[in-house]
Formats: sequence, structure tokens, C-alpha cells
Amino acid sequence: MQWLDDLILQALREDAPFGDITTEAIVHEDAQGKAVMVMKQEGVVCGLPIAAKVFSLLDSEAILEAKAREGEWVDAGKVIAEVKGKLKALLLGERTALNFVQRLSGIATLTKRFVDKVSPYGVRIADTRKTTPLHRILEKYAVRCGGGVNHRFSLSDGILVKDNHIRVAGSLTEAVRRVRLRVHHLLRIEVEAHNLAQVKEALECDVDAILLDNFSLDEIREAVRLAQDWSQRTGKQRPLLEVSGGINLENVEAIAQTGVDIISVGALTHSASALDISLEIE
Amino acid sequence: MQWLDDLILQALREDAPFGDITTEAIVHEDAQGKAVMVMKQEGVVCGLPIAAKVFSLLDSEAILEAKAREGEWVDAGKVIAEVKGKLKALLLGERTALNFVQRLSGIATLTKRFVDKVSPYGVRIADTRKTTPLHRILEKYAVRCGGGVNHRFSLSDGILVKDNHIRVAGSLTEAVRRVRLRVHHLLRIEVEAHNLAQVKEALECDVDAILLDNFSLDEIREAVRLAQDWSQRTGKQRPLLEVSGGINLENVEAIAQTGVDIISVGALTHSASALDISLEIE
Amino acid sequence: MQWLDDLILQALREDAPFGDITTEAIVHEDAQGKAVMVMKQEGVVCGLPIAAKVFSLLDSEAILEAKAREGEWVDAGKVIAEVKGKLKALLLGERTALNFVQRLSGIATLTKRFVDKVSPYGVRIADTRKTTPLHRILEKYAVRCGGGVNHRFSLSDGILVKDNHIRVAGSLTEAVRRVRLRVHHLLRIEVEAHNLAQVKEALECDVDAILLDNFSLDEIREAVRLAQDWSQRTGKQRPLLEVSGGINLENVEAIAQTGVDIISVGALTHSASALDISLEIE
Amino acid sequence: MQWLDDLILQALREDAPFGDITTEAIVHEDAQGKAVMVMKQEGVVCGLPIAAKVFSLLDSEAILEAKAREGEWVDAGKVIAEVKGKLKALLLGERTALNFVQRLSGIATLTKRFVDKVSPYGVRIADTRKTTPLHRILEKYAVRCGGGVNHRFSLSDGILVKDNHIRVAGSLTEAVRRVRLRVHHLLRIEVEAHNLAQVKEALECDVDAILLDNFSLDEIREAVRLAQDWSQRTGKQRPLLEVSGGINLENVEAIAQTGVDIISVGALTHSASALDISLEIE
Amino acid sequence: MQWLDDLILQALREDAPFGDITTEAIVHEDAQGKAVMVMKQEGVVCGLPIAAKVFSLLDSEAILEAKAREGEWVDAGKVIAEVKGKLKALLLGERTALNFVQRLSGIATLTKRFVDKVSPYGVRIADTRKTTPLHRILEKYAVRCGGGVNHRFSLSDGILVKDNHIRVAGSLTEAVRRVRLRVHHLLRIEVEAHNLAQVKEALECDVDAILLDNFSLDEIREAVRLAQDWSQRTGKQRPLLEVSGGINLENVEAIAQTGVDIISVGALTHSASALDISLEIE
Amino acid sequence: MQWLDDLILQALREDAPFGDITTEAIVHEDAQGKAVMVMKQEGVVCGLPIAAKVFSLLDSEAILEAKAREGEWVDAGKVIAEVKGKLKALLLGERTALNFVQRLSGIATLTKRFVDKVSPYGVRIADTRKTTPLHRILEKYAVRCGGGVNHRFSLSDGILVKDNHIRVAGSLTEAVRRVRLRVHHLLRIEVEAHNLAQVKEALECDVDAILLDNFSLDEIREAVRLAQDWSQRTGKQRPLLEVSGGINLENVEAIAQTGVDIISVGALTHSASALDISLEIE
Repeated sequence: MQWLDDLILQALREDAPFGDITTEAIVHEDAQGKAVMVMKQEGVVCGLPIAAKVFSLLDSEAILEAKAREGEWVDAGKVIAEVKGKLKALLLGERTALNFVQRLSGIATLTKRFVDKVSPYGVRIADTRKTTPLHRILEKYAVRCGGGVNHRFSLSDGILVKDNHIRVAGSLTEAVRRVRLRVHHLLRIEVEAHNLAQVKEALECDVDAILLDNFSLDEIREAVRLAQDWSQRTGKQRPLLEVSGGINLENVEAIAQTGVDIISVGALTHSASALDISLEIE
Repeated sequence: MQWLDDLILQALREDAPFGDITTEAIVHEDAQGKAVMVMKQEGVVCGLPIAAKVFSLLDSEAILEAKAREGEWVDAGKVIAEVKGKLKALLLGERTALNFVQRLSGIATLTKRFVDKVSPYGVRIADTRKTTPLHRILEKYAVRCGGGVNHRFSLSDGILVKDNHIRVAGSLTEAVRRVRLRVHHLLRIEVEAHNLAQVKEALECDVDAILLDNFSLDEIREAVRLAQDWSQRTGKQRPLLEVSGGINLENVEAIAQTGVDIISVGALTHSASALDISLEIE
Repeated sequence: MQWLDDLILQALREDAPFGDITTEAIVHEDAQGKAVMVMKQEGVVCGLPIAAKVFSLLDSEAILEAKAREGEWVDAGKVIAEVKGKLKALLLGERTALNFVQRLSGIATLTKRFVDKVSPYGVRIADTRKTTPLHRILEKYAVRCGGGVNHRFSLSDGILVKDNHIRVAGSLTEAVRRVRLRVHHLLRIEVEAHNLAQVKEALECDVDAILLDNFSLDEIREAVRLAQDWSQRTGKQRPLLEVSGGINLENVEAIAQTGVDIISVGALTHSASALDISLEIE
Repeated sequence: MQWLDDLILQALREDAPFGDITTEAIVHEDAQGKAVMVMKQEGVVCGLPIAAKVFSLLDSEAILEAKAREGEWVDAGKVIAEVKGKLKALLLGERTALNFVQRLSGIATLTKRFVDKVSPYGVRIADTRKTTPLHRILEKYAVRCGGGVNHRFSLSDGILVKDNHIRVAGSLTEAVRRVRLRVHHLLRIEVEAHNLAQVKEALECDVDAILLDNFSLDEIREAVRLAQDWSQRTGKQRPLLEVSGGINLENVEAIAQTGVDIISVGALTHSASALDISLEIE
Repeated sequence: MQWLDDLILQALREDAPFGDITTEAIVHEDAQGKAVMVMKQEGVVCGLPIAAKVFSLLDSEAILEAKAREGEWVDAGKVIAEVKGKLKALLLGERTALNFVQRLSGIATLTKRFVDKVSPYGVRIADTRKTTPLHRILEKYAVRCGGGVNHRFSLSDGILVKDNHIRVAGSLTEAVRRVRLRVHHLLRIEVEAHNLAQVKEALECDVDAILLDNFSLDEIREAVRLAQDWSQRTGKQRPLLEVSGGINLENVEAIAQTGVDIISVGALTHSASALDISLEIE
Repeated sequence: MQWLDDLILQALREDAPFGDITTEAIVHEDAQGKAVMVMKQEGVVCGLPIAAKVFSLLDSEAILEAKAREGEWVDAGKVIAEVKGKLKALLLGERTALNFVQRLSGIATLTKRFVDKVSPYGVRIADTRKTTPLHRILEKYAVRCGGGVNHRFSLSDGILVKDNHIRVAGSLTEAVRRVRLRVHHLLRIEVEAHNLAQVKEALECDVDAILLDNFSLDEIREAVRLAQDWSQRTGKQRPLLEVSGGINLENVEAIAQTGVDIISVGALTHSASALDISLEIE
């Protein structure tokens, strides 16, 4: 987890390139203190282990005791953690710790709201690569804390043939053919379709998954039907069907009812509001 | 601007630790391409120079030509940039470039909405330290693009005596006294007040600025009055008055009408939704 | 390709922490020179672009002109590249450039010898994760240059359930079940089997690939038969069959004749001899 | 030893940029485990302290107990270390730890085979700069574990005037003269000779050591005689004589019998086969 | 304090890129030792915590016990610290530890000599940005240990309008106007004046501080008078007056007597002689 | 020269973690400018290539044209360089560039003063390892510019048996014996002697060089005599004699007259005053 230490150390240096001048003037070097982290809003708790790291990197003796589980839904007013350590470390680390926890809890909370809408239908809510640069592993962790599942982590660990690839290759079929020549044998192949014709073409290519991008509800239903027909006709397993584009809390349930497998939502990571959480010295 | 190159290179590596396997399978090493960046939503454009860097770090010959100024408000559908370069670089850099531009444009757009509400009253909208770790300089740039002003950049370049400091020092007056002994002579002193009694105490300490945190409208008005009275009584300049806490697009105008100088809004950076922007290979 | 620049810069610093003291004493700062890179042994050429980078990082004007294609088999005595640039850069970079090219050409050459044995049978030669720390991307590139294919690049981009995982989970079936709950939908699942009973169990789990580790020739033949039977019985596609363990140039052809799909060979990267290549200033 | 931690952390990140997805799915976060490291081949053990570091960087409580001394020759089947710690750390670190230990033990073992051939004659086996980029300190350590001695570590800590330097300077004598003007007083001067005429010229220059590169056995014997004659004639100490080029286990003993001091062998580091060693969870 | 660890680790690597070859040859790996750090010259002690870090980074068990307080004036011959730990760590870290402590003690000592001259007059001695690259935080700490105060730490945490800025802006007044539009509200504005006319212009601009650069004693006195007159005339507080340029131990007292507030001295950090301090193994 | 870029980039970031706020407020982004670097004091010029790098790292088009050679002695008032480029780059880089050039020119100038005293006697002035952490390569370059020679660069490229080593080994003879077993064959051995008895012991050990540390003039003369006697008696070449400890501009000539070879002076790097040099925008 060295990368996490590095990320936090860079964040701390960003927030105090030559020290916390207010705190250094006011607080004695060795003074010990205690603080509580309090939810000002209800939501899913996420990121306490990162906050713990923030304080322990500033004071190796500092201890953060979690009062809520990662992924737990808590009410406003709840104390979610107690921190003990050097007062200077608590004050210097406060903003950085909260910046992590507030963002991650915001993502987990938004994910939970989506998941609650679709879980009755056995559909999974997935994240995307629309994450904050350098925060992807953390943000994908927050999605899992909120009950979502992860899509691929990067361009290196999953094949997704997108519109731009198809345009460059000349056709969907040709793009898939080229990928098959190169990909290692532990990776599946997913193709992004923008219309029903492409869904048919993808089915003929025998791909493992099809991403229905910006399809209307009716088109999604038709795509599901096409895939089932193909499966019956060929005796092969139906490819996974994923939906993305323009998903929100209002329309997600209707999409889930169409029988697709996965709904991926960029907003989980790029547009979640931070949860209001504060640190109070006692 | 080495830090920016480093940030982008880390972001690119996060998104492709061992290459863009789909693109490498499909696209010829030397194929050239062209793409346009298109706004799918109206808003303030911000971050095109960062996108330009993303592509030029992947292909030193790649050129991004901006079709909109930084800080410009544009309508949905507008092409805001054209990029030419190696197709592989365009495809590999697409998501990273958009992740930067969408976030920053989202922040600039939200800032603009706040600024439009208060500018008739001569009040400034400021950001906070509630930024995304490692993105502070960029996010504060986006705030300026949206017409806002920056607060201090870190714990090292501004004195803000907060509630936790006051608690530790024993009193607001004592906290200010300690800070005065240590701070270098080019820094002002601001104090965070949580009630009118603290406003009075801060005025007696002759501080340079007072942050009214989570005050009601009535309390803000009273604080303004107290500060004016003190100024008249002492013949000294009234300290700057800043408001923060619970600000939103609904209540910000009323606060601006009270006569305060600065309204600082954490949501600008921690809760702005990303703008929907896409990159399309032509 | 920043990682490659970083790798090379670290290598150059390792070889000259405070300069090339012999060369600095002898060669004039601005003297220009020319050198040829010569094969002292026949084999597959691999790594010339890395050598080019070495010299251009030392002298931005230096040019390496390749006289052989990457992956080309050449005879001893062949000039595979010409380099022009500052003499100091040529001398300072010589050993580092050769250390890369000799190793990679060695790997490509050994791979080629294995590939030549099995290609008549339509079997692929794959690498493993038994690579030199920090050189994996390069070494896997060399394997491709030699005609081999890559296995997964890391623990993050492929699922391989190994003996130790099975022991920990209690059974192969349980291990596969746990993996299915967590893995993202673009990854396949491979299981390492150590005997025919495990092959049967893996088939019942409907995994995507089975690695036959340290099987005798007879056991491999039996595993192939079991998989075909299962496929016919269930109407599903036969999982991929991969063989590893104790493979050498003597036994690889017989294994290829059994009908397996992939033979993975750790020796490609951990035990290839460097090719003898020299750089001669002209 | 920070550089070693850095090297290992980079290696671990190379092998798991976003985690060990198989292990994370199967193994409980806090499960403890025990493993043994077993030699599958006889040879010299080398690198256990590096393996210990790998595991302790993943789990600060993990303990590797060595069951063999560094440099000890052990038989196949021997348990050379026991590791206890978090199961996840054992599984995540397994391949990286083995990649270090297998390579280093391979180098130490090959070195030992050379050393055993020449030690009766009081001749030393030395390594070269033909090492794997970023692994030089470790590989030179492995050579010492195998009973060899180290040559210079880099271009910065030893003077070796090579053929390319002589060509640039115009003559061996001129090259040596230039070096003498610049080199600090704690460094000796060695010259690489390619024929007996150069040996004579080097003797006249009164250098500290002469490297006989790619000499035939007869030429080596003649070079030894020339050096002894020069020594008697001048009353000065005979320069050290080093042999390199085309050394193998078949011809090394004959070379050692000629009376030279040092035989340097690039193959020690660039062409040693890794030793087969495994880690088994118990 | 990660930056300090990084600085020290880089320093240690600079001093021993592949180990302390003398010590490794002589000292047993596990031998324990004890050493004392002794002042060979009188002066102010500064930097012992850095020395402690040097040794503890080399041997996590090593302990440095300070025998003098940071900032304490001690006589020649005084033992200022005792260090216990692995002998190898003591010998390897000796020079690096002393290089830090000698420099910082030299700076603190020179600062003390200046401070002693001016403290009777209530004037402060400040440092400048004329520090050693990468050592600024440490050198400014040494200035405080010597009784001085710090000026701004960087170009980012203080506004100082200098001659070059005035030249570019066209006038001092215009430069100040531009700065006021941009600077955040917690920063003051200081202007560097080169003659009395500029002092008058700066006063009219109502700046927070004026730096009198290279003024004669008479000019300084006149500047003080001008500032006081302006203050009486306007009823505003007199701006701070700072003097710099050509300050030495001979003229500093006379300057202090003029009534200015701050005297800044580049020599504190760029021309202090190192104090002679040694480390002796016992 | 990547290390130099890295050093400068770190220095620039130290001086402006979030920009040069004064300059950004005053100077237009694209304004071009010109500046001259002027000597305010006579001395040896050193470091202009580093200054050139500073500006070109901030503005790739910036050009520094040197008006004096490295190592040239120039009078006060001399323009030593002209810089053209973006005004912002000139102002942002000014202090960092000068901090390098002033320090290095100070070191070169002090070295020159020592060298002038001893060069009539054929004695060399050498530096030590008492350099500023992370600046050693630059400072040793400055010593060469001033006419001095370099001692070893680190603990890795030269053997110097010091008092602490002798104490640990039990005797000088034993320390030398241990070193001989380990050192590679391109390194000489120097021993630090603290009295004439140790000089005799070192001579008997046949070391390559003896460092006379803190010897009186008479003791130095006696040491020279002892070494000459030993040389005549044994027919071997006299070891090099180096003097260190308490050397200053007053006593260095007398020491040079004793017939020693090298005088090493820590003050060259640890106590040189910076030269007064300024950058003036035109």
C-alpha cells in the first residue's frame, strides 16, 4: 500500500509546503489531543482507513478508532471515528483527512442510492473510468463500499472496443478480429454498440459482452431480445449486456427492468457531492 | 510547470499501467488522426491547456487547437477544441484529458453560477481548502476561470485561527497573541468566529479579517454592524468580513446583500458535477 | 512511455553516479562520433528502440539508425544499428544500451527456438510472471518479438487460481466460487491443476482455462481427453488448456503434439543467455 | 538501504498495479499463514534478505527465518526459509520474492562453478558491468556470495581505458596521459589491450593493470612473460593482469594456469540461469 | 516531515551510491558502537534532530541523545550529543550528519551575532530567499534558532514588489494596483524602494511594508521620518520599514538605531561559515 | 544530466510551490524580456550553465548567453551573462539561478585564492566531502573551476582509512589488511595518520597515500623525510602525502613548501562566502 502512503504524503505537502503556520504558532510541540469525526449528513461511511493513515503518517503514535464500519449507512450527527495523537498532527491532518473521507463517502452514498433502485432486479451498478486522476483505486473502492461493482480498472486490464476504435478499424467485425489476435487468453472482449445494427454485428462476432451506449428504453429491450434469440439459435451463452449513458436516479429502475446485466454510471465518481463531515477537537 | 507534467504522467500511468491493449491491437503504430472535443452541456470551458499537455506528453507532435477561451461560457454542442496527432495518442489520452477538462469545467461553471448571484453587490466568491488531494492548484485555477477569487492555497501561506485553535489556546485573544509572535510580516491574520461574542473579541484583537462561520442571516447583519461601529469608534479600518458554511445558490444572494466582503463556498470544489464533454475521432 | 525514460535514466545513473571519469578525461566535450552495433552471435534482434532512447537521453541530437527490424533473425557479424552523436554520449551510453539489447535479444532468440518447435502444431508459446523485477514490460515485448504470446502482465489483469489459493480456500470449487463473486466482467478465470482429479473438478466448475502444472506427457494427453469429453457432454466450449513446468527445447514438441493450446515457459525470461553484441566506435 | 526498499516497492507495484485480484477474492484480509521456500535444484543460496524485505514491506509483522546462510551450497529439496505473516502478503509477495532469489541464486551458483575451477591457482573470478539495469548492486552481491570478487561498480569509481577510448585519443599512450591529468589520487588506471603490442605500450606507460581482451592462451602466456620481464627490467611491481572475453567453464582453468591475476566473466550476470525455487503455503 | 527523510536519504545516497567500501571492509555487520559529537569552536548548536534522523534512517535502533538544546550557545570542547547504534551506521552517517549540523550551527551562530547587536533597539533580524537550493526550510529554522525571524518562505506566500516588477509595470503605483487585484486577502503587500522618491510613492499607495534597499544611513533616517509624517497626516498606521543590502556586523547597530523595524541579511544563509564539529567513536 | 534538471526543478518548486504571486499579478503571460547578470564583486565566474538550465526549464525558448568563461576571473561590474525569454520566467527563475551561481562562484573564488598560494610549489589544492548535501557534484565542479582538484566523490569511489576505522580495527595495520581483502583492484588505499608513529606504520603497510591530519609544520616536514627514507630503503615509490586540518590562506604556503603533494581544504565548500551577483531586467 506504498502508493497510498505516497498519495497521502503528497496531499499533505500540497496542504502545507512549509508547515501549518497557524498551528505551529499556537500549539505546543508535544501537546496531546483527541478529536471526533462527526457526520453532518446521513450517508455511507467510506475512507476511515485513509484518514487513519493521514494521522499516523504525521504522528506514528496517533490512533484512529473507527466507530462505524466501512460501507455502513449512518445518520447525521453520528460520531464515526475518534482520533488520539499529537494535537499538531490532528490539526495539520484535519483538512486532508476530511478531503479524502468526504469525497469517498459521497461516492459510496450516491452508489448506494443507485444500487437500492436496481437490486430487486438482480442488476449490478458498475463504475467507469471517469474517475479523478490519481484517485481511481480509492474511488473504485468507494463504489464497492456503496454496493456497486467495478468495471475494468484501466486500459490495460480489460478489452472494450469503443466507437472510436470501430471507426478506425473500418468495422466492428474487423476491430474484434484484430483484438482477438493480440489479447492474452485471460481477458474477455466487450464491444460498445451505438445502435441495434451494431448489436447484431457484435452478436455475430461472438463477443463476451456488449455495452449499449445511450440506447432508449425501447432499444435496450430490443437488444435484450436480439441477444436471447441469438443464444437460442446458436446454443451459446448469451453475452453480458451492459447499459451506459444518461443514467440517473429517476430512470435507472426502468432500465434495470429490461433484463440487462450491468448498468454503469459515470456520475458515481465524477459528480458525487462530498458528504459534510467535520473533525472536532475535544 | 513540471508538477503539471508529473501529475498528468501519473494519471496516464494510472489509466494504462501496461498500455492501452485495445487500441494497440487495432490501431497502426504510425496512423495519424484528428478529433474534436465537444460540449454536451452548456457551461464554462476550463482545462484545455491541461488537455493539450496530455496529448503532447503522449505524442510530442500532437497539437490541440482551442476553439474556446478558458473561462468562456459556451452552449451545448459547441466544439471547444480540435486535436491532431497519432491516433494511438488520441485514443490513449482521451479519458485522461476528459477527466481533467470535465471536472475543471464543472467547477468553473458552478463558480460562475454563484458569482452571477453576488456580483451586483460587489461581493467576491472564494474557494476553500476543501479541494481534491493533488488537484488544488488546478481547482483553484478553475474557480478563477469561473470568476471567483482564491482563498489561501495552503496552511503555509495564510493565517486562519479556527475553532480548534481557539479551543487549544484557551481563548481567541490568546490564540491571536501567539500567532502574532511567530508569523512573518507579510501575512495578515484572520479569525473564524462562531458567534457574535467571538466577533466582538476578534474586533478587540484588531485582526485583519473575520470569518463568520455558519451564522444566520440576522447574525451576519449584526456582525457587519458591530464591525462598522468598532471602526468608527477606533478610527481604524474595518476588518474584512467573510462568510462560510451552508452556502447554496438559493441563499447566497441574501448573504451578499448584508454588506460582507467575501463568501467562501466549499461546494465549488468538493461538490461540482463534471460537465459532459466528449472526444470524437473524425 | 515516460516509464521507459525513467527506467533508462535510472540505469544510466546506476552506471555513472558522478560521470564517466575515463571518458571525461579523454574525450573533448563537443567531439562528434559514429558507432556501429554488431551481432557477435546469430539470433533475433530486439531492443533497438530502447538503445535509441539511451543515446537520445544523453544527447538529444543523437540518432540511432536501425539496420535490422525488431524480431528479425540475423547472422553473426551483422551490423544491426548505426549511432551518430556526441562521442561522450556514445561512450557513456554504450554499456547501458548493450545491457538492454543483449538481454532482450537473448530472450527473443530463446523464444524463437521454442516457437519453431511448436508452431507446426498450432500451439502458442507464452511467457510467465518469472521476469526480472522492473523489466517485465520489456521482457514481454521481447517474447512477442520472438514469436511468443504474452500471458497476463500482473496479478491485476488476469485471474489464475493456483495451488496456494486452493489450499487456502479449502477446495478448487470453493476458490472458483469466491473469485466469481469479485472479479470484474471482462476477466476470464483460469485454474492451475496438479493432477487429473483437479482437472475434472475444474471442468465441473466451468472455468475458462486450465493450467496443467508439471504433468507427465501421459497425464497431459488424458487431460485433453477429459476436456473434450466434458465439452461433448455439456455442449459447452472446451476450456483452454495450458501446460507449464519443466519445459525445455527437448520436450516441448512432444507436449505440443498432445493437442493443448498454450505452453508457458518461465525460462524464456528467467534463464535466457544474453546475446553477444558490441558497439564499435568508428 | 532505502534504494532496496524502493526497488522492491517498484517491483511489487509492477506485479500488482491494482492489487492481487485472485487472492483478494479468496483470502480473508486478516488470515495468517506460513510458507516454506524450497530449493528444487542444488546450488548456492543468495537473496534471502531481499525476500525478507519483500514480505515485510507487504506486512510489517511478517517474519522470514532463513534456514540457510547466504552463499551456502545446498541440495535440491532443502527448505531454505520459513515465512510467517498475513496470507495475503505471502501470496502477493511470492512471485516478486522468488524472482529476486531465483536470479541471485542462479548468479551465485554459476560464479561458484567458475571459482571452483580457478581457486587452486590463486586466481580471482571477477564480474563486469554487463549486469541487469537497476540490479547491479544486487548482482555484484550475488557474485561475492558465489566466491567471486567485484570489478568496478560503475564508470565513476574506476578507470578502464578501453579500445574506443584509445581510438578517440589516437594512441594508448595519449589516452593514459589524459587520464592521469584528471583522475583523483585514490584511483588506479587499467588499460584494455587487444594485442601484444598494446601490452608492451601499456607496460611502458606504467599503468596499474592491463586487461587482456579476447587473447588466445598463447598470447596470454606471452603477455605474462612480457610483464614479468618489464618488472625485472624496471624494478617496479608488475601490473595486475586481467583476462576477459569468451571465458567459459571449459577454458577457464587453462587460463588460470597462465599466471594472470583476475579473470572477469560477463556471463556471471548476463547469462546465469535462474535457480528453480518455490514457495509453498503450509 | 517526509520531505526531511527524503532530503537525508538523497544526501546519504550521494555520499555512498554503492556503500561505504572502507567501513564495510573493516567493520563487522553487527558491531555496536558509541560516538560523541564535539564542538571544536564555540557557537550556537543547531541541527541535532537532523543528525538524529540521519542515524536512525541508517539504523532504526540508533539513538542520538542531545547534550545541548537547539539554539543554545556552547563553548568549544563541549559534547553536544551522544550517539549509540551499529558502528557501520555511525561511520556511514558521520559525514552527512556533520554536513547538516555544521552548516546549520554556522547559520545560527552568525544570526546570533547580528541579533545581539540589534536587540537592544527592538529591531528584528530577518533572513532572505538567498538560501541554498533544497535547504530553505532548514536554513530558516537555523535563523530562528539564532534568534532571528523569518521573512517569506517563497514567492508563493508573500508579496514583495521589487525593482524588476516596478520596471515592468511602468511605475510603483501601477505595480501595486495590479497586485491588489489578484492577491488573496490574507497577504500583505511590501514594496522595495531604491530611493526616497519611491518611499514617498509607496506611502501614497498605502502599502503594508516598505523595504529600503541599499539606502545610506542618512537615507534610512529620512525614510523613517517620511513614514512617521505620513502616518500622522493620514491617521493610518505607519507601514513596516525593512532595511536590506550591504548589512554587516560593523554597520548593523547604527542601522538599528534609526528606528526601522526589520533588518534582513542575506549573508545569514549564503555566507555563514560552517562550525567545526566532529564525531568521535569511543 | 537528468539529476541536474531534477535538482533545479526541486529548487524552483521550493521557491514557488504555487507560483510567483507577485509576478503573476504584474506581468503579462506572454511578455518577453531581457536581463543581464552582473558581478557586484570581483571573483571567479562559475555556474552559468546551471543558470541557463534554470531559465530554459521555465521557458524552453529562453536563452542565456554567457559573457564570461566558466572559471574566468572577472572584475566587479562585469556583465557575465545576458538572458532573453519570457519576463515571467526571468523573474520566477532569478533567485534560484542566482542562488546557484553566487554559491558556486564563491567556492571557485576561494579555491583560486588557495591555488594561487601553492601553485609555485607544484602542490595541488583538493576539496573534501564537507559539501552541502545534494550539491556535491556542483561544488566539486566549482573547485575545479577555481583551479583545484577533486578528492574522492563519495564513500564508494575511494578508500580512506580514518581514525575511527583504526580504532575499530584495533590497529592501522589490521585496518589496512582488512581493506585489502575486499577492495576492487582499481582503487588505491589512503590512510589518515594523526602522528608520526602512524606515518611509520602506514609506510610499513605499503599504502598508496597518507593523509597527515592536523600535523604541525615540523611534523609535516618530518613525515616527508620519513617517507623519502622509506622509499630509498625499499626501492618503492614514495606514497602520496596529503595534508588536511586547520588550513587557511595564511598558513597554506608554508605547508606547500614542505614537499607534500596535496593539501585538502574543507573550507572551500563549507565556508566560502557567496559572491554578490545580481540579475537586472532591462
